[in-house]
Amino acid sequence: MFRINENYLKLPGSYLFSTIGKKVGEYSSANPDKEIIRMGIGDVTLPLCPAVIERLHSAVDEMSRQETFMGYAPDLGYEFLRNAIVENDYKARGCDISADEIFVSDGAKSDSGNIVDIFAEDTKIAVTDPVYPVYVDSNAMSGRTGAYDEAAEKWSGVIYMPCTSENGFVPELPRETPDVIYLCFPNNPTGTTLTTEQLQVWVDYALKVGAVIIYDGAYEAYITSENVPHSIYQCQGAEACAIEIRSFSKNAGFTGTRLGFTVVPKALKCGGVSLHALWARRHGTKFNGAPYIIQAAGAAVYSPEGRKQTGEQIAYYMNNAKVIREGLIGAGYDVYGGVDAPYIWMKTPEGMKSWDFFDYLLEELNIVGTPGSGFGPSGEGYFRLTAFGSAENTVKAMERIKAGKA
Amino acid sequence: MFRINENYLKLPGSYLFSTIGKKVGEYSSANPDKEIIRMGIGDVTLPLCPAVIERLHSAVDEMSRQETFMGYAPDLGYEFLRNAIVENDYKARGCDISADEIFVSDGAKSDSGNIVDIFAEDTKIAVTDPVYPVYVDSNAMSGRTGAYDEAAEKWSGVIYMPCTSENGFVPELPRETPDVIYLCFPNNPTGTTLTTEQLQVWVDYALKVGAVIIYDGAYEAYITSENVPHSIYQCQGAEACAIEIRSFSKNAGFTGTRLGFTVVPKALKCGGVSLHALWARRHGTKFNGAPYIIQAAGAAVYSPEGRKQTGEQIAYYMNNAKVIREGLIGAGYDVYGGVDAPYIWMKTPEGMKSWDFFDYLLEELNIVGTPGSGFGPSGEGYFRLTAFGSAENTVKAMERIKAGKA
Repeated sequence: MFRINENYLKLPGSYLFSTIGKKVGEYSSANPDKEIIRMGIGDVTLPLCPAVIERLHSAVDEMSRQETFMGYAPDLGYEFLRNAIVENDYKARGCDISADEIFVSDGAKSDSGNIVDIFAEDTKIAVTDPVYPVYVDSNAMSGRTGAYDEAAEKWSGVIYMPCTSENGFVPELPRETPDVIYLCFPNNPTGTTLTTEQLQVWVDYALKVGAVIIYDGAYEAYITSENVPHSIYQCQGAEACAIEIRSFSKNAGFTGTRLGFTVVPKALKCGGVSLHALWARRHGTKFNGAPYIIQAAGAAVYSPEGRKQTGEQIAYYMNNAKVIREGLIGAGYDVYGGVDAPYIWMKTPEGMKSWDFFDYLLEELNIVGTPGSGFGPSGEGYFRLTAFGSAENTVKAMERIKAGKA
Repeated sequence: MFRINENYLKLPGSYLFSTIGKKVGEYSSANPDKEIIRMGIGDVTLPLCPAVIERLHSAVDEMSRQETFMGYAPDLGYEFLRNAIVENDYKARGCDISADEIFVSDGAKSDSGNIVDIFAEDTKIAVTDPVYPVYVDSNAMSGRTGAYDEAAEKWSGVIYMPCTSENGFVPELPRETPDVIYLCFPNNPTGTTLTTEQLQVWVDYALKVGAVIIYDGAYEAYITSENVPHSIYQCQGAEACAIEIRSFSKNAGFTGTRLGFTVVPKALKCGGVSLHALWARRHGTKFNGAPYIIQAAGAAVYSPEGRKQTGEQIAYYMNNAKVIREGLIGAGYDVYGGVDAPYIWMKTPEGMKSWDFFDYLLEELNIVGTPGSGFGPSGEGYFRLTAFGSAENTVKAMERIKAGKA
């Protein structure tokens, strides 16, 4: 008789956004006249920009003619896209990354979930707390996280690194040595960043103890501060200890279009074996490339028009972030993030539990956000609002918060 | 110090199609005047049909307007596509499969590589021999296949089920009981099929011993024979023992457009836990949906125009298959497949090794095919030709084979 992977059964049951959806649905059914403003999920709302649309159309036309039709894509992605990525995201920032170190994929979620495959089974991971759930869940599914403690909301085998207002959301180096360290900056959910010097500390640490950093840079395009690195490879030595995961979801509105990439430098080795070779093997065996028309559209993001138009979209969302930030500060809240990221992380008032504040916002102000505790125990007492709504609704939400009523 | 997943190091080094590519490249460089006909790789060559192109364009237009823009897709795929799949691929054939048992994905290769994740670590797999390499390699990567024996070209922990002319390419039930059985029919590489009665034997066996069948039906659209099942769910009881993987690559030319789906019936359980719940969790954690525009295009394949146009493409390729089949028979070869599949499987002449025949075809006739031994030890002495080329080149290749020269 076959048996299942029992690690799946250890996963805590309710997925954060399902619970939110259920609560909102129930409230909405009971109060059909209320106009609910959604600032919970990190999904974009602006349509794809004209440069991307135009390239999608022309790529579709190519697929309609025998002489320009594209079948199976190269395993690592098309050269034209990998070259555009290297030029714009790496060479332009002084990072020594080459096109054959870029692996084009269908998105950052797939890559951040699948990357564990190439590490040993007893790999010990360290994560910031609060954290994007995929890093921990994907390790739990492959049996790398020990047992789950329902009360503490923690896995016995995971090293948690609290990020709270007390340490300015800068994680401290762990006492126990991890094998793999997940860092996401600008951070989801806190919206905070590390300076280049602060990130260099992590690179130096990883090199010293022989750990690999999985660096999730999905929100890189939202950085406005001067001293915040856009890539971990802006830190010295990172190419020997870091894998970087990037996405087109937030910088170009590709959440429903699906495109991302992962950088595995050839210098990143374990006992003479390059992780690049392992990831290439995984990519070649269990993936068959992102669609040609989507890769073509991804390259259009780097054209002069594409950069200008996606830049305008980011500015639109970041104006929302400013409105939220200033609105919340004006209403007397402690607020973090929202300067280099589309996420605003706030303290709940007077030690209110995150889920209680969720209920208050939903029921009294008809605003949906995300309880901080949903991202990990150190998120308790915090709350996340996202800047991906319309400018009009964002202003309206802040008016409700200021007035204390819907 | 972090460590790698050492199972990757056990994988035999050279990937079949890389070796072929290298050999062809070298011959081509040394003989630039020779016109080489490629019948090796299973990639389609006809452009996407008008119904699909039209829907791609209109979906791109939807992505350009705020009111029709699509962000993150539902985890399991859009209802409109899942409903079209259920109606056309299952209900129309009398299979009791519902829309929420369909998981839309970026392709059959990803699904057939990732499906092992939901099974126990010591899962014992059985595969036909010869076989599509992904089934075995993905299990090898997760340590489920034991040690690799270079001489025998076999893994110690895998149950191989030879499919040769001796048994009419119908695998025999294994003596040792497997947990998971991979079956692909119409078969890649042999192009042969099982009748409904022959497949029922496997379903009955799986139900009896408590095994799961992973049924790869990527070539279903090429079936022309009456008594060959299009889905394993045409067999009684299959919904309690089988997962079916399907693809848009070969029936609609989506090799570079990327779309597939996997059916995990809710009745498929292990000790009360449904595999559906586990796969849903994996899908939700490590994947973020296929692009909206691609899912929209997938649904267009099921429209009356889409069915007619893709049917014409399949007929075009199957005419090539007929030309190859008859050409080879006329030239005195033993030939299999090519009736319900775009693959023709032939015996090499006079016990010639598969790779020697590859060299002969390349150097003497300037035709590229795939050595049967590349698909497993029982493929030695066989050779695969594919019907995905142009009609003109297919005819020309057969003329060369008949003449015994280029």
